[in-house]
Amino acid sequence: MITPADVLVAQRRIAPWVRETPVIRWDEHPSRPIVKLEALQVTGSFKARGAFNRVLAAQEVGAIGEAGVIGASGGNAGLALAYAAHRLGIHAEIVVPETSSPVKLERLRTLGATVVVHGQRYGDAYDFALARQQVSGALFVHAYDQEEVVAGQGTAGLEFLDQAGGLDVVVVAAGGGGLVAGIRLAMPEHTRVIAVEPTLAPTIRRAIEAGGPVDVEVAGVAADSLGARRCGDLAYHLLSSMGVESVLVDEEEMIVARQRLWDEFRLVGEYGGVAALAALLAGKIETNENDRLGIIFCGANSDPSDLVKQVSNDQG
Amino acid sequence: MITPADVLVAQRRIAPWVRETPVIRWDEHPSRPIVKLEALQVTGSFKARGAFNRVLAAQEVGAIGEAGVIGASGGNAGLALAYAAHRLGIHAEIVVPETSSPVKLERLRTLGATVVVHGQRYGDAYDFALARQQVSGALFVHAYDQEEVVAGQGTAGLEFLDQAGGLDVVVVAAGGGGLVAGIRLAMPEHTRVIAVEPTLAPTIRRAIEAGGPVDVEVAGVAADSLGARRCGDLAYHLLSSMGVESVLVDEEEMIVARQRLWDEFRLVGEYGGVAALAALLAGKIETNENDRLGIIFCGANSDPSDLVKQVSNDQG
Repeated sequence: MITPADVLVAQRRIAPWVRETPVIRWDEHPSRPIVKLEALQVTGSFKARGAFNRVLAAQEVGAIGEAGVIGASGGNAGLALAYAAHRLGIHAEIVVPETSSPVKLERLRTLGATVVVHGQRYGDAYDFALARQQVSGALFVHAYDQEEVVAGQGTAGLEFLDQAGGLDVVVVAAGGGGLVAGIRLAMPEHTRVIAVEPTLAPTIRRAIEAGGPVDVEVAGVAADSLGARRCGDLAYHLLSSMGVESVLVDEEEMIVARQRLWDEFRLVGEYGGVAALAALLAGKIETNENDRLGIIFCGANSDPSDLVKQVSNDQG
Repeated sequence: MITPADVLVAQRRIAPWVRETPVIRWDEHPSRPIVKLEALQVTGSFKARGAFNRVLAAQEVGAIGEAGVIGASGGNAGLALAYAAHRLGIHAEIVVPETSSPVKLERLRTLGATVVVHGQRYGDAYDFALARQQVSGALFVHAYDQEEVVAGQGTAGLEFLDQAGGLDVVVVAAGGGGLVAGIRLAMPEHTRVIAVEPTLAPTIRRAIEAGGPVDVEVAGVAADSLGARRCGDLAYHLLSSMGVESVLVDEEEMIVARQRLWDEFRLVGEYGGVAALAALLAGKIETNENDRLGIIFCGANSDPSDLVKQVSNDQG
């Protein structure tokens, strides 16, 4: 099992390659949250932290050969892996399902990745990537369920803790659970960690109810980033042993939060990336007075064209 | 003449009402700039700092009566004034030219401002606001050429200096010159301050050449925010006595910078707001090795719908 020390190691390891993302205090909101703008991370989401940590750790022990690295994801995890490999001069093969948009395939190719399109669904691409790895000997990099990946995501939590000068409650979006598990590891025991999932993709909630990860049907506006079909084993064991609270947000709550983020801060979020904010705005985060409340905004890979038009054509 | 002490006073005065905007280090860029995200300020631009300082300073000495405050601007300055008045429970009258978009008039009205539409051009609205002020007795709040406004904008510089731990070069967009003058005041003498203007709205460049502010024809993509027709008297005197460098950027350079800001950070900028970044990206900012370089990103009130679409529909 990984420990908080692994997050510290990850932080030192990935520091030259990732950004220290800023925080902003939202004092106009009654709960006065401090918001971590992790969506300003390289590649537009926190996923770069875990990808760099996994690849660099393997590189340190000479575990990456000519075949480089392989992963399955047409989303943020694939983009982060392709970027990390590109920066480190390593070959990357990314397997994506047929449903992936041409724009995203193009972005992966621009980063020098070999893109393999396989299968109708993400699960098909994932299985194919595992099989490919057996043949090629590339390092398999999971989107969330590997120790180095979880420890890497946890570095966002260490950073947040430093920037905030301590946190009593921290609210985090959850899909496969890699980020929230890493954050749980990084936080002191007394800090409440709240995992926010879409009602249409409740993998952690169902795992808690079932006593272990189970497959869940996923759908909805946030399925592109929080659409893992089951909570990672690592995340489940960490969260169930260390304690986590579960909150669900519905489609409308994420849509409202995304618009609000734009109206208040002129920031563009993806639906999954604003899930934690959605829980706050929906009144689902209960805090005590003077609690230091942290909200993680973790993904911005979204088409902004539907946000309110506020063209400015005047002087002054 | 205002002094650096006025900026310190302004900082204490406006602190409860404005945001400490974050900074982010852009280590992937060869010049390793630190970028101040002032566009995350309330109302989407730095203008809130000056507006609050002007209104609060007047309030302290009982200079605001029933008529409240008045200003001319359909752009960021008008929005900031309406917002400040709204938060402080003061009536605001905002005069805007007929060319202002309905969306913006609606935003001003939502903040409780009385909106008066007058004249074809900004100058007409400005003259009308001055005349109205004579009748109503409201406090006139200029978009850039008043001491409290300049001192207020300067607080962004003090904050930046603290966050960066010192700056050797700071690059700032300039329209009427309120922000760059405030920044010049806030910086130590040895810090180089570079005012960046569009080639199609070079009010500071022309003022330096002419030995004083002169009217300039203004046009182009940034005319909505950097379209003041002449440099403010205050800004000119401050900048010419304390020293400033002038750099011009063309239309294409601002367009490229706005897209790059989105590609690298998923941040939406208005053209004027990214002028400083445009100068850096165009290779127009010369620095010495190890110079601590600061770039101010100062406005985000832009329709994001033309930015590259990167919709995400896959899992993982």
